[in-house]
Amino acid sequence: MSQKLNIICVTGSREKLQMAAMFASVAAATGDEVSVFLSMNALSYFVKGYSGEAPVEGEMGSIMSSQKGVPPFKQLFQQAVELGDAKILPCSMAMDLLKITHEDLDPELGPPTGLTRFLSDGEGGQMLTF
Amino acid sequence: MSQKLNIICVTGSREKLQMAAMFASVAAATGDEVSVFLSMNALSYFVKGYSGEAPVEGEMGSIMSSQKGVPPFKQLFQQAVELGDAKILPCSMAMDLLKITHEDLDPELGPPTGLTRFLSDGEGGQMLTF
Amino acid sequence: MSQKLNIICVTGSREKLQMAAMFASVAAATGDEVSVFLSMNALSYFVKGYSGEAPVEGEMGSIMSSQKGVPPFKQLFQQAVELGDAKILPCSMAMDLLKITHEDLDPELGPPTGLTRFLSDGEGGQMLTF
Repeated sequence: MSQKLNIICVTGSREKLQMAAMFASVAAATGDEVSVFLSMNALSYFVKGYSGEAPVEGEMGSIMSSQKGVPPFKQLFQQAVELGDAKILPCSMAMDLLKITHEDLDPELGPPTGLTRFLSDGEGGQMLTF
Repeated sequence: MSQKLNIICVTGSREKLQMAAMFASVAAATGDEVSVFLSMNALSYFVKGYSGEAPVEGEMGSIMSSQKGVPPFKQLFQQAVELGDAKILPCSMAMDLLKITHEDLDPELGPPTGLTRFLSDGEGGQMLTF
Repeated sequence: MSQKLNIICVTGSREKLQMAAMFASVAAATGDEVSVFLSMNALSYFVKGYSGEAPVEGEMGSIMSSQKGVPPFKQLFQQAVELGDAKILPCSMAMDLLKITHEDLDPELGPPTGLTRFLSDGEGGQMLTF
């Protein structure tokens, strides 16, 4: 049965972003309604032209960085949006702190979203934090 | 519709505590029933007289620390308790490890709570971990 | 009432693994159906013969490491499996990246499991990420 999956990204590490992106991508591929909320240290990677690498937390992050077969998390998020019912939503508060507007963000990102709205839209679904 | 929001704070970083506090505060403001469980490295900040700063995880933590408009997480938690239906509950196991009693904690904190109780009270609601 | 508790372990720190193990153990003890998904930096600790210590995140990790009364997280996970309805499931993608098979893992671990399967089996239950 299709369900509603909400993913809150707070941490800016390679491992957490990769895990969030894989959940978004497999859930979207199986017909789930997916909403990803990008806040805190997870948002910068989606600013146009940003080229920083997400720092690794441990051994698995290093392995993923060195192996060619692992799709980058941004590509997985993009696939979820293109192939399924997924939305990638920037946290409006984090945007204010970074002093950026919607135009500064990658085109696959949806409208700036507040916590209140994200919580109320996510009601009745699973909610994962990374 | 009002829902039940349970927040488990485990990490002691500025970003995670701020995010947890913002969720608690907006949810309480919209009439949700909020329970926050403080354990592991998140509890020390609520010991009376504790003056340590929560370490930052990344860029956003530094930005929040340097900007004047960002309310401290303790203030947001307090608002949630004062203005809404929110409880901030210290983990009884973490209290044992820190060798503290309820009297050592900030007055807005509720009774020492065990994991079993927190899980069973939270049944049917959202559960977020930070 | 008994519920279904799903725990996703991504972080390899002492605090997060201990918290996840305590939730698994108390939930299993009260009759809940528990599924733990081990991925990213949380899986290595369950490779047979692995002897590395989980790094601590903060003060509480150090306190736990120095006190004799705190049961190791692996023991708590094992208890959850032996005494209750708990499954500890290795993430199949993480196994691929570590180049290990099911035989390389501790005997209390269940079959290699994909994200899609874990998500669909967990439907309708609580889902915690650590």
